[in-house]
Amino acid sequence: MTEIDHRPRHLDAKLRARAREVIPGGMYGHQNAARLPAALPQFMAEGDGCRVRDVDGNDYIDFMCSYGPIILGHRHPAVDAAAREQQQRGDCQNGPGAVMVELAERLVDVVDHADWAMFSKNGTDATTTCVTVARAATERRKVLVAEGAYHGAAPWCTPIINGVVPEDRAHLLHYRFNDLDSVEKAASVAGDDMAAIVVSPFRHDARLDQELVDPAFARGLRSICDGAGAALILDDVRCGFRMAYGGSWEPLCVSPDLSAWSKAIANGYPLAAVLGNERFRSGAEKIFVTGSFWFSAAAMAAGLATVDTLGREDTVAKLERVGTRLRDGLAAQADAHGVEIRQTGPVQMPLMTFRGDDAFTLASEWADAAARRGAYFHPWHNWFLSVAHTDADIDEALVATDEAFAAVRRVLDRQRTRVTASVRRAGTSDVRR
Amino acid sequence: MTEIDHRPRHLDAKLRARAREVIPGGMYGHQNAARLPAALPQFMAEGDGCRVRDVDGNDYIDFMCSYGPIILGHRHPAVDAAAREQQQRGDCQNGPGAVMVELAERLVDVVDHADWAMFSKNGTDATTTCVTVARAATERRKVLVAEGAYHGAAPWCTPIINGVVPEDRAHLLHYRFNDLDSVEKAASVAGDDMAAIVVSPFRHDARLDQELVDPAFARGLRSICDGAGAALILDDVRCGFRMAYGGSWEPLCVSPDLSAWSKAIANGYPLAAVLGNERFRSGAEKIFVTGSFWFSAAAMAAGLATVDTLGREDTVAKLERVGTRLRDGLAAQADAHGVEIRQTGPVQMPLMTFRGDDAFTLASEWADAAARRGAYFHPWHNWFLSVAHTDADIDEALVATDEAFAAVRRVLDRQRTRVTASVRRAGTSDVRR
Repeated sequence: MTEIDHRPRHLDAKLRARAREVIPGGMYGHQNAARLPAALPQFMAEGDGCRVRDVDGNDYIDFMCSYGPIILGHRHPAVDAAAREQQQRGDCQNGPGAVMVELAERLVDVVDHADWAMFSKNGTDATTTCVTVARAATERRKVLVAEGAYHGAAPWCTPIINGVVPEDRAHLLHYRFNDLDSVEKAASVAGDDMAAIVVSPFRHDARLDQELVDPAFARGLRSICDGAGAALILDDVRCGFRMAYGGSWEPLCVSPDLSAWSKAIANGYPLAAVLGNERFRSGAEKIFVTGSFWFSAAAMAAGLATVDTLGREDTVAKLERVGTRLRDGLAAQADAHGVEIRQTGPVQMPLMTFRGDDAFTLASEWADAAARRGAYFHPWHNWFLSVAHTDADIDEALVATDEAFAAVRRVLDRQRTRVTASVRRAGTSDVRR
Repeated sequence: MTEIDHRPRHLDAKLRARAREVIPGGMYGHQNAARLPAALPQFMAEGDGCRVRDVDGNDYIDFMCSYGPIILGHRHPAVDAAAREQQQRGDCQNGPGAVMVELAERLVDVVDHADWAMFSKNGTDATTTCVTVARAATERRKVLVAEGAYHGAAPWCTPIINGVVPEDRAHLLHYRFNDLDSVEKAASVAGDDMAAIVVSPFRHDARLDQELVDPAFARGLRSICDGAGAALILDDVRCGFRMAYGGSWEPLCVSPDLSAWSKAIANGYPLAAVLGNERFRSGAEKIFVTGSFWFSAAAMAAGLATVDTLGREDTVAKLERVGTRLRDGLAAQADAHGVEIRQTGPVQMPLMTFRGDDAFTLASEWADAAARRGAYFHPWHNWFLSVAHTDADIDEALVATDEAFAAVRRVLDRQRTRVTASVRRAGTSDVRR
């Protein structure tokens, strides 16, 4: 066993203690590290490319990319320069900068289904605006969403319903991802009141094996929406630009009416977008949504630089290459250690789970061991690759994961020993009876 | 009449035409300039202190401060340096930076009622989170809001209800600002299901004369909430740090349980906050709210620098001094031109309306003329002063507003001439009859 080479997390521990005083629960939301393995820090100091450093000075190869936003790598020079240059002239002003028009034009150019764009700050802003536009355009109420799918943390969609009233979800109907029958059933319940179907490019719910979309399912949704005059809303907040440059379902030739974007759209700068087609433009014109920082220019300049940088090379192919290298490496290591794993999702947004590990005990052991050796993986949330990951970075991370599989192997061995011992004791006691 | 000294808005016009292609309605939300006077640009280029420049190179003394966020002046050196320094290390990461704890501690220290803080991106995030916390803590549903009050642009509160379903507002009850009887009536309807009362520090609804809060009304709300075990939620998004350093009702000695902040909290960097007291901490711990950029460190570094800079001088007194100078100057000019105006709201967040000008025709004429002469005022939304405004800036702006009153005077004179002529014609025709 390799010596744990990480410094003790003194500063992280101190900050956690201070945070418990002034932040409810010590932290909230998806970045609350309280339930993560001990070796994953709560507080981060800096990042560069695919490397991140925590507040105690420990370095990691980053496989979370800030839960998605970092697609070109941390501190990408062109993106940061564009944002800084815009910031130094004007960011939050009495009106948007010219860059808002340029970014809208670029997105309309790049994303196949889009004729127009609106910008906001959160992925939740984007998904909520999509639903509002669909309802305004159709003058209908019912919205179909997949069971267990995450579309944000507003009252209508947050996965934890404390503080939410039932009416917030009054007109939601549920279907099962990749199950067209269940969609048809929900659509028939909605009848002529169906405003929209919301769907993720693939099933990327946390704590579950990921599931790629069946192209026939995607085409079926399009056809159901066309038949009903409802909006097909693609929630591309998490996947956008990692699956395809022109929208995650572009390779399937399935065009949504509305799509929600955020995360990677500006490589970490706070930005979200709704893209829509002509049919839903007048719906978008009817609604009122806004925010104090929705027109701020620096994040839009970062967005423009991000989209342009992504467009200059075959980003998705690059992400797939390093993602495949990681997947193949993990598979070989798991085999070598005799550990049964499942790797699901697209290779550029993968998840690895352990057989029978419903409580994520083994996944946590694995992620903990990997973090101690300098690779930052999440135990139950899908990971993210970036353009900054090289083959060499993957190979270096695989050294850490090999140790992590060894750690899992030891846990499994201890469990087997205990089971054997207990079976032996049980046998003995049988004899005694 | 002074020659109009502004350059033609060629670039603004071109950008508006391009925007109409790729942005619904050409623009959306509160920064849609379509209904503003022609001389107010849609697209802005830069800002410095209290001066802003549009994309055609026209300069203005800024009395909107980006609709509130700019409290220290555009491009404040200490704030920008803090944000840039943090940005260059790490902004959007796998976890927050240490600065999140520092900012939460500082706000808890500065804002009297606060024991804890949560951060997000939009004012709407903050008000919505306050309501969710109140409902989670009380396990009740009803929320009292003032008629016509703006608390954000989510389905439960957006002022335009297209795309919103009635259920989004199922448990809202309305009262009239400064009318305690109406609150008591609504509270009795809510009964033991009252989760919260939401209130703004003063009545700052657009298109209406502003109304300062009656201290007895504020105390009455506190007492009703105490009696009912409901949360008093102060929506300090728009006013925060302009009325008082410790929260806008600190001078009244009325402490809310929860307060919503955004706009000026980071001098233009995208940040919002919920501050709360001990009684509502466990409610905050129960809910799930989050966003991809809610933990980003650069805006928090800007927030910390903003709060510290504001704390080093008597900001509110300074804002009141220049605000009073503006108000007095406008009053004298209106008098001199024989134009009847009303000036309402606190002097640092003032609104000026014209007598009988229900359609804001005179206000638009005035704002148009002021803009052509280099002072940026909104015709029906309250204005904002900043620490960067000096007496000399106010005096320079008053040169522009004097011309603007002259323009209004000419409109009124033309109207009177037309009325006189029409009365004369009417008289003549009477004689003829």
